[in-house]
Formats: sequence, C-alpha cells, structure tokens
Amino acid sequence: MINFTVGPVQSSDAVRAIGGKNVPYFRTAEFSDIMLENERLIKKFAHTTDDSRVVFMTCSGSGGMETAIMNCLTKEDKALVVNGGSFGERFVELLKLHEIPFSEIKLEHGKALKAEHLALYEGKGYTAFLLQKHETSTGVHYDINLVSDFCKRNGCFLIVDTISTFLTDPFDMADLDAGVMITGSQKALACPPGIAVMALAPSALRRIEKTKCCCQYLDLKLALKNQERGQTPWTPAVGVLLQINQRLKEIDAAGGDEAEIARAAELASYFRNKLKEYNLPFEIISESLSNAVTPLHPTTQSAYEIFLKIKDEYGMWICPNGGDMKETVFRVGHLGYLHKEDYDKLFDAFLDLREKKFI
Amino acid sequence: MINFTVGPVQSSDAVRAIGGKNVPYFRTAEFSDIMLENERLIKKFAHTTDDSRVVFMTCSGSGGMETAIMNCLTKEDKALVVNGGSFGERFVELLKLHEIPFSEIKLEHGKALKAEHLALYEGKGYTAFLLQKHETSTGVHYDINLVSDFCKRNGCFLIVDTISTFLTDPFDMADLDAGVMITGSQKALACPPGIAVMALAPSALRRIEKTKCCCQYLDLKLALKNQERGQTPWTPAVGVLLQINQRLKEIDAAGGDEAEIARAAELASYFRNKLKEYNLPFEIISESLSNAVTPLHPTTQSAYEIFLKIKDEYGMWICPNGGDMKETVFRVGHLGYLHKEDYDKLFDAFLDLREKKFI
Repeated sequence: MINFTVGPVQSSDAVRAIGGKNVPYFRTAEFSDIMLENERLIKKFAHTTDDSRVVFMTCSGSGGMETAIMNCLTKEDKALVVNGGSFGERFVELLKLHEIPFSEIKLEHGKALKAEHLALYEGKGYTAFLLQKHETSTGVHYDINLVSDFCKRNGCFLIVDTISTFLTDPFDMADLDAGVMITGSQKALACPPGIAVMALAPSALRRIEKTKCCCQYLDLKLALKNQERGQTPWTPAVGVLLQINQRLKEIDAAGGDEAEIARAAELASYFRNKLKEYNLPFEIISESLSNAVTPLHPTTQSAYEIFLKIKDEYGMWICPNGGDMKETVFRVGHLGYLHKEDYDKLFDAFLDLREKKFI
Repeated sequence: MINFTVGPVQSSDAVRAIGGKNVPYFRTAEFSDIMLENERLIKKFAHTTDDSRVVFMTCSGSGGMETAIMNCLTKEDKALVVNGGSFGERFVELLKLHEIPFSEIKLEHGKALKAEHLALYEGKGYTAFLLQKHETSTGVHYDINLVSDFCKRNGCFLIVDTISTFLTDPFDMADLDAGVMITGSQKALACPPGIAVMALAPSALRRIEKTKCCCQYLDLKLALKNQERGQTPWTPAVGVLLQINQRLKEIDAAGGDEAEIARAAELASYFRNKLKEYNLPFEIISESLSNAVTPLHPTTQSAYEIFLKIKDEYGMWICPNGGDMKETVFRVGHLGYLHKEDYDKLFDAFLDLREKKFI
C-alpha cells in the first residue's frame, strides 16, 4: 500500500528498522542523551530562542493542543481563535471545556485568513491567540505573519498548531514570537503516531509555572522538570522517541529544515502540476495551500467512494475527510517518505478511473 | 542487551516484525476489525462479563490510572486506597488532585495487605476502592480476593491497576466484580509502550455516563463511543495497537491467559530457585510475590551500582528502583519474551560479580 494520507505516513528504512527492534529500557543515561538531542534538534528546526524548551508527550496532536490550553491559559485570559475546519473547531471545544473566555473567527471551509478578519479585534484586550498554522482538514495554510503581527501589537500569547506543517513549510518560532508550537510524530516527522512534540518559549514557561494543570498526566511542569535530565514523568512511547531521534538526525544530515521543506514543496508542486496537466475532475478547495497536502473536491463522484476505490482496487490510501466533508473532499498528502514515482502510480489510478468513467 | 526490567520488555519476533513496517492508515474498516478483535480478546483474557467494554488509550499506565479516576469518581465518592509503594502513592496524588475524598491504607514497603487492615473501614460508607493488584515498585502482590470481598460487602466500586500482573497472575474481572481494570502495552503484553488498556464493567460504564471528565483527550465517553465501531477519537499509537493484536492472537493460539500465566510462573520459579541454589547476597523484600517480578535487596552493594554494572559490563538490564529505594532495591522481571537461558546468563553475571567481590 502506498500511503498519501496526512498521517500516519511512510517512514524511512532506518526509522522502520528501529521499529523492528526490541524497545530498550529507558531510565538510563543513554536514553536521556537521546532525549536531550531530540530537544536540541527540534529547537534548531523550529528556530526557537536558546532559552526555549521542548517536551515530548505520549499522546496525539489533539492531546498536545489540549495540553497547551490546560497548562498555559486560565479563566483570566481572553482568547481569540480561528475556526476554519475540524481542527479550529477542536480548539473551540477545548476552550469551552476549560472555561477560557474566547472569541471565534469563523471562516468558511477553504477560505484564507485576511487582515480584515483581525481588524475587528484590534486593541480589544485579547491576551491569547490560537491558530492552526495549517487547517489540515481543509488544507488552508493561514498567514502566520499576519497573526504574529497582530499578537505582537496586542500583546497576545500565541499558541500555534503546526501539526501538519512543521518541516513542510517555513516556521521561525523566535521571529514570530510564538509561545507554543505543537506537532506530532506521524506527520512530516514521518514516525509512527504516539508522540506530540511541544516547543515552549520563555513566555510559555512563565505561564506554565503560574498555571495549575487539571490533569497530572498532561502536566507540563512535570514534563519540563523531567526533560531537564532527558526523562519523562511516565513511561513514554520509547520506541517512537528513538525513531524521532533517527529521523531528526537524518534531516540534519540532509540540510536541516530548509532542505526538508524544499523536498515537500517539490513533491507538492509535482503533484499539482500533473493534476493540471491531466485535467482531472478535481477542484482544489483551498485559497492558500501549504506544501503538506492538496485538498480536492471531486466534481463527478463521491470523495469517499474514490477513497474506497483507490484503497481496495489500487492498493493506495488517499486521505478521506470526515463529518460534512466526507462525500465532497479528499486530500492527497505530501508528507513522509514519498517519491515522484509514487504520485505517478496514483495518477495512473486516477486516469484508469476516468477511463472507466468512475470519475 | 537482555532486558529483565518491568517494561518496556522484549517482544516476540512477529510483534517486532510489525514494528519494522510502515504504519497503515487507520480510518478504515480493516483497522476497525483489528480494534474490535483486540477488545474481544482482552475481554476473554480478563474474564469480563459479556456486557463489559474495553478501550485503548494512547498514554502510559499512569495515564490510565488517572483516566479511571477522572471518568469514574466524583467529589460525592468516599474512596479507600492502598498505598504500599510508588504506584499506591500515585493513586493518592491523583485522588488529591481530582479532589476525591479518600482514606489511605498505608503499608510498609514489602508488606502484604491483611484482613485486619480492612476491618477498620468496614461499614463506614466507602463507595470506591483503588488498588494495585501488584505494587510494581516493591513487588507485593496484594490479596485481591480480600479486597473484592470487602467491596462486595460494602458496595464499593473497585478500580484495579493490573498494569504489571495482567497475564502473569490470575485475574477474573467478572468474578471479582471489579469496575475497572487497567494495564499497559509494555508489560506482559510485551509490546512497545504507548497504550493503556482499560476494561470497563457495566458499573463503570454507568459511572462514566454520569461523570463529566475534565480532560477531553482522556474522556472515556468519547473513547467508548468511537470504540463501538473500532475507532478512537484521536490518532492513536496505531503501530502498537497492531502489535497488541498480533500478541493477543499469539496468546490465544498458545492456550490463552492460563497458558501465558503458567509461562510467567515457570520463569519466576526458575529464577527464584536458582537464587536460593546460588545463595546470592540478595534478600527478597516482598511478603507476597507475583509471577511478574522478583524484588531484591542486595546486602553487600548498592542496588543502583549493581544495575549500572550489569548494564555496562554484562549487557543486560535489571530494573532499578527510584526514590528512597534507589540504593536498596532492584528488581528482576519475568515479563515478555524471556527464556530460562536468559536467566542463566544473568546468574553467570551475578556469580562473576561475587567472584570479583563486587557483591
């Protein structure tokens, strides 16, 4: 099966080889060294300040989103959140659950965030801003500079979900003055799922210090304290952490985040050019694309039926959408260990389906 | 490295082979079938009632302990908890954090739970009981029948942490009338860490229905709803779940939980017999042993120094203790893919250390 979903994605041979070994005991200096190297390399690729920190939580990316809210925000905050799809909606649900006062910028699926959306909230005392850098469900890559500028002007603490764009599109945490960056092991890190990676700027560390987290398991005070010596308070997904280490070193050796981002950009543009060339009955639904994924609306067939057909008859996974986009949108990812020849096979399948009048 | 710790432990060849493959996309009927089979086999091996349920949470065993408390207990409860080591202490911390009224039965490290400890609490309106079936830190295997009888008499909802004894010692959830059973992927399930498995009796399901969980990521209502169709609300540690499936089928084919428990018992008694035979300067510190682990106090050398020596010079991991037991206790596990010859190598190392007057 070739995997074009947005996660889990395909891993390199060396990453998979680690998965095939026994998981070592981890309360050791050897494992601590690996965890400290993981922290150092994430800081490097996320372009954090030197005094930022990184923790590795054994949970999903959504778990990381909730961890950020539970540990950094309180009822004294006034948050602004962009909701343009399933993941923006999840931030909204989490703010409600944790009783953080907030306002919501609701965008139509596929629409970009513009200066006029933010203008309304200027100088209104907002203290925090929550944003998907890339709304993975609709493939909309928001203008992070616009949001960062708003936050700098208004003194907002910025929480950025970069789950699907870390290492596929540029991100400079220090320059953007972001407080929290969240990503997952199974996106461009191209490891199995199980770990949420969180980079925390000094502004976040100060907030965490003052905030009482309602959940011990996701308490960042404990995670930070343990990570000082390269450890975790609870048994983590040790195997995935070793795979992340391998992958980070691979990226570093191949030219760092810039080279990895260029690789994703090349795959994305290869796919998008072919899409035009073959004139397939798929419309790109996003006004503002990232390199991570291409979101498509098929005009002649149900999106979900195409997903099933490609899976069952061609041995490939494209990425279905859920909820009210199930029948209308599927996505093709450019994450993980994919090559141009893989896309050629996907286009062969699409062309065959057109030939057979399925699409 | 041979791994005698209490987790992560060694995996079978077939389980490791799955770890060496790419992780598949999981929002599919194929993955749902695997998850439903996982639920069915855990129910079988835990001897639950038919109307019990099982969920797989992407977190550590401690995350599972907290999930049980957050979803099943409220401030209206009056809980009783046995605290005889690090994990009992963790239950206590969690009850405090979540503001559940409780009383604590504090036992000295290594001591068994006796009827007289419980007598004090008889008929005093306790509504919940939290117990490590096996206090992994000290290797004390509590008398679960004693506790179950107390709970039946007093109408207590019983939460059992079987993290280190599920599949090493008998456990009949229906017979004990336990409400929640918690275990982890990296103990006798012998898979990589990342998943907490929770079996939930109808009494737990009723409590979950009525309780508002303060954490969306660990909300059992959402986990249960999704597991109805073999799915999870958030991206789980898909790879580990596939490995658990392989392992459960292996156990089923080899004679089920009884055969697996017999295998652990045989390893444990092989180790303990040799220990006597060689008259090593190690005292067993537990009054009541499980088959999962043998907890030892070395009388002639620091426990932690022995751990380091065995790791660095003999290529094996025994299991160090933390906190105030660091220098005085180490443990030798009987979990996972170990064989008698592995213990022979460990004894060779111990004998060599005695020869060299290190112990």
